[in-house]
Amino acid sequence: MNRIFVYLFCLISLLLCAVETLAGEERSEPLPDGLSEQTQLCVLCHRKYTPGIVDDWLTSRHSKITPEIALSKPVLERRISSEVIPESLRSVVVGCYECHGQNPSAHKDNFDHFGFKINVVVSPNDCKTCHPTEADQYSVSKKANALDILQKNPLYHTFVETIPGLKEVKGDKITLLKASEYTKAETCYACHGTLVTVNGMKKVSTEIGVIEVPALTNWPNQGVGRINPDGSRGACTPCHARHSFSIEIARKPYTCSQCHLEPDVPAFNVYQESKHGNIFFSKQYEWNWNNVPWRIGKDFKAPTCATCHNSLITTSDGKVVVSRTHDFGSRLWVRIFGLIYSHPQPKDGRTYLIKNKDGLPIPTAFTGEPASEYLIDKNEQLLRQAEMKKICQCCHNSDWVNLHFSKFDSTIAETDKMSLVATQLLLKAWNEGLADPSNPFDEMIEHKWMKQWFFYANSIRYASAMGGSDYASFKNGWWYLTTNLEEMLDLIQTQKERK
Amino acid sequence: MNRIFVYLFCLISLLLCAVETLAGEERSEPLPDGLSEQTQLCVLCHRKYTPGIVDDWLTSRHSKITPEIALSKPVLERRISSEVIPESLRSVVVGCYECHGQNPSAHKDNFDHFGFKINVVVSPNDCKTCHPTEADQYSVSKKANALDILQKNPLYHTFVETIPGLKEVKGDKITLLKASEYTKAETCYACHGTLVTVNGMKKVSTEIGVIEVPALTNWPNQGVGRINPDGSRGACTPCHARHSFSIEIARKPYTCSQCHLEPDVPAFNVYQESKHGNIFFSKQYEWNWNNVPWRIGKDFKAPTCATCHNSLITTSDGKVVVSRTHDFGSRLWVRIFGLIYSHPQPKDGRTYLIKNKDGLPIPTAFTGEPASEYLIDKNEQLLRQAEMKKICQCCHNSDWVNLHFSKFDSTIAETDKMSLVATQLLLKAWNEGLADPSNPFDEMIEHKWMKQWFFYANSIRYASAMGGSDYASFKNGWWYLTTNLEEMLDLIQTQKERK
Amino acid sequence: MNRIFVYLFCLISLLLCAVETLAGEERSEPLPDGLSEQTQLCVLCHRKYTPGIVDDWLTSRHSKITPEIALSKPVLERRISSEVIPESLRSVVVGCYECHGQNPSAHKDNFDHFGFKINVVVSPNDCKTCHPTEADQYSVSKKANALDILQKNPLYHTFVETIPGLKEVKGDKITLLKASEYTKAETCYACHGTLVTVNGMKKVSTEIGVIEVPALTNWPNQGVGRINPDGSRGACTPCHARHSFSIEIARKPYTCSQCHLEPDVPAFNVYQESKHGNIFFSKQYEWNWNNVPWRIGKDFKAPTCATCHNSLITTSDGKVVVSRTHDFGSRLWVRIFGLIYSHPQPKDGRTYLIKNKDGLPIPTAFTGEPASEYLIDKNEQLLRQAEMKKICQCCHNSDWVNLHFSKFDSTIAETDKMSLVATQLLLKAWNEGLADPSNPFDEMIEHKWMKQWFFYANSIRYASAMGGSDYASFKNGWWYLTTNLEEMLDLIQTQKERK
Repeated sequence: MNRIFVYLFCLISLLLCAVETLAGEERSEPLPDGLSEQTQLCVLCHRKYTPGIVDDWLTSRHSKITPEIALSKPVLERRISSEVIPESLRSVVVGCYECHGQNPSAHKDNFDHFGFKINVVVSPNDCKTCHPTEADQYSVSKKANALDILQKNPLYHTFVETIPGLKEVKGDKITLLKASEYTKAETCYACHGTLVTVNGMKKVSTEIGVIEVPALTNWPNQGVGRINPDGSRGACTPCHARHSFSIEIARKPYTCSQCHLEPDVPAFNVYQESKHGNIFFSKQYEWNWNNVPWRIGKDFKAPTCATCHNSLITTSDGKVVVSRTHDFGSRLWVRIFGLIYSHPQPKDGRTYLIKNKDGLPIPTAFTGEPASEYLIDKNEQLLRQAEMKKICQCCHNSDWVNLHFSKFDSTIAETDKMSLVATQLLLKAWNEGLADPSNPFDEMIEHKWMKQWFFYANSIRYASAMGGSDYASFKNGWWYLTTNLEEMLDLIQTQKERK
Repeated sequence: MNRIFVYLFCLISLLLCAVETLAGEERSEPLPDGLSEQTQLCVLCHRKYTPGIVDDWLTSRHSKITPEIALSKPVLERRISSEVIPESLRSVVVGCYECHGQNPSAHKDNFDHFGFKINVVVSPNDCKTCHPTEADQYSVSKKANALDILQKNPLYHTFVETIPGLKEVKGDKITLLKASEYTKAETCYACHGTLVTVNGMKKVSTEIGVIEVPALTNWPNQGVGRINPDGSRGACTPCHARHSFSIEIARKPYTCSQCHLEPDVPAFNVYQESKHGNIFFSKQYEWNWNNVPWRIGKDFKAPTCATCHNSLITTSDGKVVVSRTHDFGSRLWVRIFGLIYSHPQPKDGRTYLIKNKDGLPIPTAFTGEPASEYLIDKNEQLLRQAEMKKICQCCHNSDWVNLHFSKFDSTIAETDKMSLVATQLLLKAWNEGLADPSNPFDEMIEHKWMKQWFFYANSIRYASAMGGSDYASFKNGWWYLTTNLEEMLDLIQTQKERK
Repeated sequence: MNRIFVYLFCLISLLLCAVETLAGEERSEPLPDGLSEQTQLCVLCHRKYTPGIVDDWLTSRHSKITPEIALSKPVLERRISSEVIPESLRSVVVGCYECHGQNPSAHKDNFDHFGFKINVVVSPNDCKTCHPTEADQYSVSKKANALDILQKNPLYHTFVETIPGLKEVKGDKITLLKASEYTKAETCYACHGTLVTVNGMKKVSTEIGVIEVPALTNWPNQGVGRINPDGSRGACTPCHARHSFSIEIARKPYTCSQCHLEPDVPAFNVYQESKHGNIFFSKQYEWNWNNVPWRIGKDFKAPTCATCHNSLITTSDGKVVVSRTHDFGSRLWVRIFGLIYSHPQPKDGRTYLIKNKDGLPIPTAFTGEPASEYLIDKNEQLLRQAEMKKICQCCHNSDWVNLHFSKFDSTIAETDKMSLVATQLLLKAWNEGLADPSNPFDEMIEHKWMKQWFFYANSIRYASAMGGSDYASFKNGWWYLTTNLEEMLDLIQTQKERK
């Protein structure tokens, strides 16, 4: 750090503040204790130039608790998982510099910012200093690999280049142009993440004059599988919104609703119309959203997404029901988001490694057979189901829970059958030359086929899992599973007549 | 009750608790006063094995107020409608055993549970002990008959077996397989209710070992027309969620949203975008959701579903505006949920008794004539409308209210006309052999016809009734009412050409 | 005012009250101080006959603060913009009579109501007495002209008469009947406003007997462009809901959601799934919704619609970020609600004055060229963009903000291209006689064309602007932009074959 520059800057800043105060402007509130020297300087300036995030951070736990204090809590109440916090961070609160100054040498986006070495993008690898268990769990999840999953899987890659790509019409044909990086960034990659690299430096005109900053590609982005300038995969901010990093926000279903929405993944929508959702929406303002561990029946009365999928849950007596996990699929045995059909959860978050029996990089064959060697086995499935049932059984008796999952199993089987019927029609169309299989995502019959499993079969399975009957019935449910088949048949007939 | 078993069980439980306490586990909070001896024993065990519902119940009024105290309130403030509570229940709070131990001889699902005679399913007939007026009103409503309505009406029964049924494709035809009980249970019957019967006993493996419980069919289910193992019809829990039985939850529109959703019954969706909904969503957290009676302007500022459709409403001065009802159609004059067309409300909740002029079990003929002898007459319609207007008039002047309903009347007439146009097209298709009338719910032209009245005409009427203009316009409104007609015409033309 | 009548009325009212009190009815709470003599009399009666609005008003700032006190606040904290309040209004709170008694001679809906000269409809011109800046800004906005925009633009007028109009089928053609005033009032005009005129007097039967009131046309209505009986344009109540006139309600996105909804204007829907929406829905109950000025980071942590589009925003130190505006387009440079294509904001709220290069009253030609002379120039666009960026920069750095808007610009261009492709197909259909251009809104191919720009291209632009990726992808986004093109092509082919 260029000390002379810093002192110079401080001097100028303080001078400016003094001038403004004399000029009659309101004075800022005093800063809380425990800020590092560097963070004090960050805040001194940024409370003027990005005041919203400074104020937001001031409401955070990060701004109030040092890692030392955090570590003094009983293990179950701890919010950090490292036992060994670097000396320089132990006794200061977690401020601007503590996060944006981490691991500068690993960060291609590190730059000199008024004498400080600052990273633009804070990555999971930076958060890992205090939260290593969470970062490690996350790093092997499908979420952390979400961008690779789209880019390294040729089939999904074709999909990404096809749907959001510009189209032209030539004669009676649609011609596909390449999808732009911008459009991919705000469709698929908005949730899956972008590849953020550094393309040298650039000048930006700001309120305090022109400054030089790293020129980032595909930025801004907050997708869960973002590849960061330090080479790490993932982002914590999609769920832990900056700069309050509020556990309340992460625990509320609105967070998940940023991506897990109808028509393809209607998790939030189904929750919204479920009994659990009804109770949540009615009573949320009275619950304790900040307690760690999170006590069922005491802190909350009905589960949110986080309850079942990742939070540390205890009873009101402090008995652990399930441990915290940041590998979000790790409590799941079946993947109801069918590709093409539902299937046991993949063993590895890097699903692009999968090959099905036909050599395609998808977890089931077109005719339904799972690519079993890449998927968890029966034993692991049962273990995970037993783990999940523990949560249900905090409120529901064992018989109730078993029967719920029996119904769910039946629905999985039936919806897969309905996807198979549609796939058989598609195969027929391909075989009879009515459509071209070279790109399976660019023709009318293919789009109808996709709707069958991607929109409708999926919706019904989410509805079955979480008890939202409308999505099983008239809203992307059996009604559409049925009428879509009709439309496929009708289209095939028309195309045959045309031939 | 087998006293020896009970004492033995208590001893063991207490011993276990002691052991756990000595082993260093946290102690439970003390129980509130007023629990019956039996409920104390239930809670002793269930706070370990289903702690969520015990904690939820502990927040309920049931856990705090005895019927005796409940009866000491002024009549308008009472939450129970019986004047004569059985001696054994008068002075204890309403706990596990007080509900799950009611009327054991009537309950085919009663079983010996550690020495107690317990019913798995608490039915409206059990709640009736303290809430007889509500149970009686409910029992004659369409809601209580909601399962019979689907099963005893051959037309609706065909619908239920057709839409959520598995389909196969043979040649260029779709073959319909029977809908499974599981799928019906999570589509139609999720809201309408299932037939819950007892099929002997079965062993269930639980945390405390294998126990024997009644083997229930079509369980779990919380549909409003559930037929219970004691022979009663209905369920209170769809709206009065277990085990807080919170009046706040019942009064909030999220409860109704579990079933009354687009595309067929978009009541919640329309409310959400209405002025009333806007005010509710903005200010709900400041209102008094628990007061009985519920005072307009004082406890709440804008109506929710419950306000207009069933709550006891008074002014802030205590003047009764409308009385409480649990026959949810009883304040309604017209049924805007068209079957096929809107029509005066049925006289009897058992709508499967209706025969229209063509002998079909629906309240209007295909050509629109109402089955008037089964429907309330003009006089009753006017009485009910006058009752509803009283609620509107708490905030809106008489002229405003009259004009609102004049517009509504016009919309009812217009949307019925648009349903008639579609029906005429369907009849034409049937007459010309383009479709087969034997099952009116299994062909493309029939599905488009259904959308006209079931999705679009309905949506517009709900939008008109409650002031949500988007559902009258572009979201399942006139836009679709118009384009769907085009599609019907186009399909008929294609099918003619194919013939 | 007929004094004798008033005194007589008071006497009778008080007598009635006395009788009721003696009869044992509950007594009303005492009224707050500061009510005018007239308002006291209004309330005396209306707390019996429309108690809900009286109670609602009693919670309002209007019922508690006199203009005199309001004016004593520092300028930035003021909620009224007039410096000169008429003497008669200065020292009384803003009650029934203060609003409904304004400018009686201008009001065709003024009538004698128990001795008072009362206007039924309170108009922006009445609110202007205390809020002149807001009324003036509003009066030149597109909102204030929203009804004229539909009625004076022949193209939009055709649209309004076509979509919500009754249809008949004659042979294989759909015949269009005229849309009824009632239906227009609850579809297009529900948001755009109706023409409210006075058609003499009429008798209305009320709880206190038959009274005479003005016979209003197209009433009730709360559209933003309502033309009022005093000749003024607009309505304040769509956002400032009666009779609390709560700034909290106006600032929350539920208010905007009354009109700005999918599929055509999915502003609320996109917000709901955005990061900003997530934070709002999670934390709204802790924010300060009533503070003026509204302090970013202090009173609220994430923007709502009002933050970016019209509120006065300061930092927590009191520095003004943006000034308040009630011309809701005035911070916008581009209009992403395409007609047909996105385009620079119109200079004048009266957009019916626009003529494009083909002489059509729309801001872009069918082939995309903007009607530039009616639209703001590049310089003004940049000024407005800079203004908006100031708000973003309260939390986001300059580079982040610039990159966000670069992506947005790209999306605007791409979606316009996708609208152009659809328009070229429509033009082809018209040219080849497959459809009739005389009414561009009444045929199947035209409806599909409309969906392309009105539903899908719009949705993607809103999604891009506010960061809601689902509306850019599968929910009315690129998926539909793509499949809709296919359907247009398919339809054209079918129609050619039929020819």
